[in-house]
Amino acid sequence: MNKVVTFGEILLRLSTERHLRFSQADSYKATYGGGEFNVAVSLANYGVAAEFITRLPNNELGNSALKEMRKLGVDCHNVVFGGERLGLYFLETGSGTRASNVIYDRADSSMATITPGTIDWREALKETTWFHWSGITPALSQSAADACFEAIKVAHEMGITISTDLNYRSKLWNYGKEPKDVMPEMLQYSNIILGDIDTAYFMLGMDKVNPDYSNEASLPTLYDELFKKCPKLNTAVTTLRYSISASHQRIGGILYDGEKVYNADVQDVTPVVDRVGSGDAFMGGLIYGLLQTPVNKQRALNFAVAACCLKHTIAGDYNLITIEEIEKLLAGDFSGKVSR
Amino acid sequence: MNKVVTFGEILLRLSTERHLRFSQADSYKATYGGGEFNVAVSLANYGVAAEFITRLPNNELGNSALKEMRKLGVDCHNVVFGGERLGLYFLETGSGTRASNVIYDRADSSMATITPGTIDWREALKETTWFHWSGITPALSQSAADACFEAIKVAHEMGITISTDLNYRSKLWNYGKEPKDVMPEMLQYSNIILGDIDTAYFMLGMDKVNPDYSNEASLPTLYDELFKKCPKLNTAVTTLRYSISASHQRIGGILYDGEKVYNADVQDVTPVVDRVGSGDAFMGGLIYGLLQTPVNKQRALNFAVAACCLKHTIAGDYNLITIEEIEKLLAGDFSGKVSR
Amino acid sequence: MNKVVTFGEILLRLSTERHLRFSQADSYKATYGGGEFNVAVSLANYGVAAEFITRLPNNELGNSALKEMRKLGVDCHNVVFGGERLGLYFLETGSGTRASNVIYDRADSSMATITPGTIDWREALKETTWFHWSGITPALSQSAADACFEAIKVAHEMGITISTDLNYRSKLWNYGKEPKDVMPEMLQYSNIILGDIDTAYFMLGMDKVNPDYSNEASLPTLYDELFKKCPKLNTAVTTLRYSISASHQRIGGILYDGEKVYNADVQDVTPVVDRVGSGDAFMGGLIYGLLQTPVNKQRALNFAVAACCLKHTIAGDYNLITIEEIEKLLAGDFSGKVSR
Amino acid sequence: MNKVVTFGEILLRLSTERHLRFSQADSYKATYGGGEFNVAVSLANYGVAAEFITRLPNNELGNSALKEMRKLGVDCHNVVFGGERLGLYFLETGSGTRASNVIYDRADSSMATITPGTIDWREALKETTWFHWSGITPALSQSAADACFEAIKVAHEMGITISTDLNYRSKLWNYGKEPKDVMPEMLQYSNIILGDIDTAYFMLGMDKVNPDYSNEASLPTLYDELFKKCPKLNTAVTTLRYSISASHQRIGGILYDGEKVYNADVQDVTPVVDRVGSGDAFMGGLIYGLLQTPVNKQRALNFAVAACCLKHTIAGDYNLITIEEIEKLLAGDFSGKVSR
Amino acid sequence: MNKVVTFGEILLRLSTERHLRFSQADSYKATYGGGEFNVAVSLANYGVAAEFITRLPNNELGNSALKEMRKLGVDCHNVVFGGERLGLYFLETGSGTRASNVIYDRADSSMATITPGTIDWREALKETTWFHWSGITPALSQSAADACFEAIKVAHEMGITISTDLNYRSKLWNYGKEPKDVMPEMLQYSNIILGDIDTAYFMLGMDKVNPDYSNEASLPTLYDELFKKCPKLNTAVTTLRYSISASHQRIGGILYDGEKVYNADVQDVTPVVDRVGSGDAFMGGLIYGLLQTPVNKQRALNFAVAACCLKHTIAGDYNLITIEEIEKLLAGDFSGKVSR
Amino acid sequence: MNKVVTFGEILLRLSTERHLRFSQADSYKATYGGGEFNVAVSLANYGVAAEFITRLPNNELGNSALKEMRKLGVDCHNVVFGGERLGLYFLETGSGTRASNVIYDRADSSMATITPGTIDWREALKETTWFHWSGITPALSQSAADACFEAIKVAHEMGITISTDLNYRSKLWNYGKEPKDVMPEMLQYSNIILGDIDTAYFMLGMDKVNPDYSNEASLPTLYDELFKKCPKLNTAVTTLRYSISASHQRIGGILYDGEKVYNADVQDVTPVVDRVGSGDAFMGGLIYGLLQTPVNKQRALNFAVAACCLKHTIAGDYNLITIEEIEKLLAGDFSGKVSR
Repeated sequence: MNKVVTFGEILLRLSTERHLRFSQADSYKATYGGGEFNVAVSLANYGVAAEFITRLPNNELGNSALKEMRKLGVDCHNVVFGGERLGLYFLETGSGTRASNVIYDRADSSMATITPGTIDWREALKETTWFHWSGITPALSQSAADACFEAIKVAHEMGITISTDLNYRSKLWNYGKEPKDVMPEMLQYSNIILGDIDTAYFMLGMDKVNPDYSNEASLPTLYDELFKKCPKLNTAVTTLRYSISASHQRIGGILYDGEKVYNADVQDVTPVVDRVGSGDAFMGGLIYGLLQTPVNKQRALNFAVAACCLKHTIAGDYNLITIEEIEKLLAGDFSGKVSR
Repeated sequence: MNKVVTFGEILLRLSTERHLRFSQADSYKATYGGGEFNVAVSLANYGVAAEFITRLPNNELGNSALKEMRKLGVDCHNVVFGGERLGLYFLETGSGTRASNVIYDRADSSMATITPGTIDWREALKETTWFHWSGITPALSQSAADACFEAIKVAHEMGITISTDLNYRSKLWNYGKEPKDVMPEMLQYSNIILGDIDTAYFMLGMDKVNPDYSNEASLPTLYDELFKKCPKLNTAVTTLRYSISASHQRIGGILYDGEKVYNADVQDVTPVVDRVGSGDAFMGGLIYGLLQTPVNKQRALNFAVAACCLKHTIAGDYNLITIEEIEKLLAGDFSGKVSR
Repeated sequence: MNKVVTFGEILLRLSTERHLRFSQADSYKATYGGGEFNVAVSLANYGVAAEFITRLPNNELGNSALKEMRKLGVDCHNVVFGGERLGLYFLETGSGTRASNVIYDRADSSMATITPGTIDWREALKETTWFHWSGITPALSQSAADACFEAIKVAHEMGITISTDLNYRSKLWNYGKEPKDVMPEMLQYSNIILGDIDTAYFMLGMDKVNPDYSNEASLPTLYDELFKKCPKLNTAVTTLRYSISASHQRIGGILYDGEKVYNADVQDVTPVVDRVGSGDAFMGGLIYGLLQTPVNKQRALNFAVAACCLKHTIAGDYNLITIEEIEKLLAGDFSGKVSR
Repeated sequence: MNKVVTFGEILLRLSTERHLRFSQADSYKATYGGGEFNVAVSLANYGVAAEFITRLPNNELGNSALKEMRKLGVDCHNVVFGGERLGLYFLETGSGTRASNVIYDRADSSMATITPGTIDWREALKETTWFHWSGITPALSQSAADACFEAIKVAHEMGITISTDLNYRSKLWNYGKEPKDVMPEMLQYSNIILGDIDTAYFMLGMDKVNPDYSNEASLPTLYDELFKKCPKLNTAVTTLRYSISASHQRIGGILYDGEKVYNADVQDVTPVVDRVGSGDAFMGGLIYGLLQTPVNKQRALNFAVAACCLKHTIAGDYNLITIEEIEKLLAGDFSGKVSR
Repeated sequence: MNKVVTFGEILLRLSTERHLRFSQADSYKATYGGGEFNVAVSLANYGVAAEFITRLPNNELGNSALKEMRKLGVDCHNVVFGGERLGLYFLETGSGTRASNVIYDRADSSMATITPGTIDWREALKETTWFHWSGITPALSQSAADACFEAIKVAHEMGITISTDLNYRSKLWNYGKEPKDVMPEMLQYSNIILGDIDTAYFMLGMDKVNPDYSNEASLPTLYDELFKKCPKLNTAVTTLRYSISASHQRIGGILYDGEKVYNADVQDVTPVVDRVGSGDAFMGGLIYGLLQTPVNKQRALNFAVAACCLKHTIAGDYNLITIEEIEKLLAGDFSGKVSR
Repeated sequence: MNKVVTFGEILLRLSTERHLRFSQADSYKATYGGGEFNVAVSLANYGVAAEFITRLPNNELGNSALKEMRKLGVDCHNVVFGGERLGLYFLETGSGTRASNVIYDRADSSMATITPGTIDWREALKETTWFHWSGITPALSQSAADACFEAIKVAHEMGITISTDLNYRSKLWNYGKEPKDVMPEMLQYSNIILGDIDTAYFMLGMDKVNPDYSNEASLPTLYDELFKKCPKLNTAVTTLRYSISASHQRIGGILYDGEKVYNADVQDVTPVVDRVGSGDAFMGGLIYGLLQTPVNKQRALNFAVAACCLKHTIAGDYNLITIEEIEKLLAGDFSGKVSR
């Protein structure tokens, strides 16, 4: 039996309704989300034992976040309480040529002020087979980066598979470090990395590259450099996202296992209900796919792409899609016919 | 003066808002709908005298359904009260590649437990020129099927035109009978049938066919078999629906009168506000068209297709579209320009 | 420093939600809008000193309209109170092939009953560099037309640039005059006119024309006739709008300065959140463009087109778009990527 | 079988939600109401055949008002279409010591511009046993007063019982006439009048009085003067309303039949959900009571008071209360226990 | 460590908003509730290990109910899936003298069709110290009564404390049995019973009594008869509820342990936000009180009354009140001061 | 002409709707508020020139706060932009015996990180006659306390009247200082202080007292000690607030001018729509009263009490009450009658 643990921050998400601008809003929809938590939700939704570890403030907002985790079937028994505030983000959902806007308000959150030693990782990761983290946690603060690195090292020692979503957020990384100061060390232990090739190069402090994903033959050379930098890496994956507009995306994916490039067909996604969390839906689908069909990497990749596409039809950060719905898409049925 | 009576079930429809999934909903929009009622609403909306006959529970949900009928200008003086509950359906409206979902909760409703003898059909159908029923009522229960058949026979004896929408619903038909056990007998009396050719064959217990609607010349042979099975049939109509996604439909139609195939141009419908009831909008438009321009079948068919297309832009089950709006579409104006 | 004054009516806008038809609405969203006010909002939004002059009833609806002006940063210190009621309009927002509907309820409003002499224009227009009016005000009533003409003449005497949006509304002009009885005199003083060529000919009482905007070479001849009729005219602009449906527009623009035709590329706008006010967004962008880059007319026109396109993504009458967002579009980025 | 016809105006009511002030509202709840229509709704609700006659504009707001009438079971087959606009009123619902505010916007409505001769009263009042009008209609305009007087005279000639609610509205009566110029003539034909004694004196142009309702013995003298002025009057009724605050009312009633004063116990009503229409609920209850138990005037009065009290618990103008609920109150059960 | 298991039905609750009547509702708030589940929620909220056992349909409504249980921290690992539908109830919340109305729509629900043998009670009740059931389950159907009796007998054999809330619902008990046919046998094993004395006599088939709770000395004789009929009974408790109106309740309580009558002061509760579930809040508080301070029965009773009072301030079925808030009330602080 | 400047923080207020608990909320109403800003709104509302000075983050939340100030007619031209975030507070509105809860999330807000020297006070306070600050600003941080003290000293030097609301908030004061370390120095310059006597003693580091406000004669001695400690003080005012429950308050007030105690009658306030900001409404009413009728202190006090009472009927932090409405209350009319 597989058990996946993800570690990161859960945020209260306050989003305007009906595409209203911030200045028009007189109410906010309140949901929750966060890259690593969203991955755990995807997995729980597919029936995989999934646990999320974070640090929450001991107030009613923290308690409400905990209730949300429980509701979604994500194990939260290692969540710790402490710190002063729950991280927030405000979201204005765009439309057409108008982009969505995010205002982060997560500085000094309970998770940003977590320190190494807060979690007993050896105990927490017992019976865990997969550990997932993303580039958001080291972007929060030095202590959060340290706490994450602590977890990574324990997971590695315990022989647990480690996956990482690079998740570069330019509005974070405000504490005096750049990704290249922190990430190379942490990525040493990653077995699976999800991210654009240029982002990976940037985070690893390598020279800037400009990959041409349409030229499949050109990719192994580029990915191979990552494999060299990250000795435990066995799978590098990139989500292909062509933004026609905020309401129309085209989604594909590439997976490279050191030997072969796998390519998933690009799908049209229109209209977009909510694109936040679609990358996490890809990651969740990818982990599920690799757990279910480890030898069939094409299928794992296709599953991730289909999960990502379907996420765009769901309001909120989570991918509340069933395996059956993904299978229907994989089987070529895009009709959206009413089931009745 | 024409008067159309439709007979069937009206349901309380509880739908999630803003494309939310069932598990995200903390409220439901409450409207009403039901295939045969929706047809009556279309007709009332076009100025045709329309009556709906059903059985409602004697509680505030039943009374509210009655108020809805009155509001919409549908005559309801023959509605009877009895039974224990109003039928319900829960609707989750999909988007893009995610399909809409319907959860029926209509077992043992007041309409499902109706029995023959409940309505004095000879009295009720006085001054009626057209009687419409659909394949949903016989799918509910044996007694509902019997009650419907009773009505059909009286209507036939009284020389009333009878139309039928086959409306196959796989989630119904749970009482031990299959369509082929019930429908052939009932369809004996139908003058107009709306449905896919393969559905008609299936319901009539005929061999499975796979019609190619793009090959117009191939269709008369297939339709002719229906005319043979249904001796009173003079018009068979099929809605062509190509689902690009839940948000994008392409709608056309075919009418065959035993002599000639009429074909209406396929129209793009995007985005889709609500596709539930669009088949009933087609049926309502068809009846109106056949009443207004019985000799101009092409126009009747075009009217039905345009009504169906416009229905997709209306929230709820009903086609609250005016004749003027349909005429504008028929005249080729798809611009959706603001009238001011 | 530029200061722009616009003069006209602000209306309470009562719109149905979620594309509901009027007969389905049990609530209305309440915002404000009006052609000339919307232009002032655009300009205030771009950082231009903008003032709106109108007449409001002395009740809580009038006061609320005033609060709205202040909120949006539009100077309102010359607004006068008087008359009996605030003008209203009811809006049903269409979708796809179903058009939006407007029910005006603005007869005998405080603005419609304004009379010449109400505003001390010489005082009000001190320090003003640009005065904007539209064809809506003379359509309201004889006294509103007279009051507007009074303003125009003062503005002209004071050497202020005058712009006009022709804004023909067939549901107005009910007081016994036609545009050709009123507009030619008023347009004598306009330096910039925004409108379709055929509308301009119609309002000026000239023979009907059928301009072919795709044939650029054919346009100077047509525009030149306007320059002859309007001796102060130096810039004639036309918004090109191709309505694929209520949810899909294609927007371009043409500017003619008596010497040269400038043409802005046609942009796809889909989906449409709200198209009301998009013409005013064009006008606001045009004034801004002509103020900022008077010698670069191509850029001014492109700015107007981009502003108009982006307006379609905003709920309500106003164009709450930043210069940065317009610049991004002008630079060719239509991706709508989340900023985070 | 009794049939009651009421004649007056139906308004679109736009009310702020959750006790918001007008300046805080960004949406309005849209319902309908109007004194005489509200009376018809009460009666229909009690199972009495009730008809409402008015004049509506031929637009979607007028049609929606008609749908509302049908929904509520009020006969509307004599409603006429014409004129330019539906009357509106804006409502801000107070709380505690803060009063509710009404902004009327009904000038020049379709009903205000009705003229005598619009309705064929002799035809319309066939089979009618009771005709009800109120002091609002003559307050609208001279022509509305004339049209109402026309109806009164026909009703009188046809031997129909006539009831009148004095309904003085200080914000109306703007067309140059005062109540005492119009009402005395019209009240000549009233058999039942509902109103405060001082209001009646005022409207009839009599000297100001200051009745002391707690001194029952003092009332006959005062009422008798009304009987002298109104020769057909047989029943004068006064609603006693003690406003503790906007959220707490105390309601009683007095009925005088020329011989005896009947007094209904004062009831506490707290909290108040919506007090608009509570006077009409009293009137509706009174008519019902007088129809059902004409000889038991105490019971008719008690029924009216109980109906009025219960109305305060219902949102909107109408008294959607069942006879059973009123009977429970009359039987002394104020417990509000959940029925389950 | 205590662990409490409750067994019963969870319903989807569809309630009108803002005190609207059913016929006014165009949407329903969707929450969940059910007597025995509400008790489990109270206990989980107080930090007691609480589990709820029921049967749910295997559809998205059943899954959503399961998510609700998890969210609220109620253990649900013994919930079984089966049957056809989730039980529903529609709620119209009254105000003042207008009572709330409940329309049950729970016939043939998954819980009503549960049969003995569905749950392995010996396994399910391992480590359980307290089992709670109520009179609602045997009211649903014969098979539900049988399944409940099965659980009771196993719990008794395992030496588990058994509590029962009599919860008489006149709208249930439709399957041919009366309480006195079923309940006496089941109540044999109850150690704690919550209910009115007359309800207990009625359910046990004893002669009708009319207890005077204000006469404390008269109660032991009446309670003693219950102790005779129910040999395991050690504590009988009655909630005193005086309904001034739907918006104003007065709540007290009486506890009798076979030796002494304990009496809790009556508290005013006004206004009432939602009284549904307040009896379950009493039961939850009572179990908590008896678990925490078994020897201090006065305090246990006071805790139950305070919990019941505070429940009335919470929307929905559950008592989302903290121990600290109850303690504040017990300490005499009713001020409701803002904590900041 | 008077001009009042207030200085402090404006917060985004996120409040649950319909008395929901935080854990039930899936949306938050978004308004703004803050003690000193609320005072400015009151004054602007009464027609007094009012300005608010604060520091806002340069993002869309900061801009939206600025729009709110403008909308409400509060001068904001000295507001500065800087810092990282807008202060927030989450509000759960209680009912009856359940108290409201506030979760402050304002640490490190733009206002909390303001430093002396940010505002050019000598320039900003030109033409100002009254400066108001409260005990909240020094509770935020050392630098905010310093910035406030800087303003106080300049105001004092410029001969401006200074008023202070003590506004003790136990959840603030987290930066290592207690009120008694900071406030005595700052209060040296206050001419008017609003606060409970015991709070004043506590903040000034004096011995604890337990004033008996019902014993008027005992108060001068207590207030006199404050006058000794605060040499510029000429008026000390205390709001009397008796909390019957969260839904029922009783409000009075006491004013002492060094010579005489003025006492305003205690008023019942029930129900309470929103009590947040009612103290600021008192303060705003007091300043207005002292400005309008400086010699009639009784009237000034009565005005403050009436303003405070009426504030409880308004949703949100602000007192959107007109002078006319307050005058009506002062004249003894509590009836809340509909104005129509």
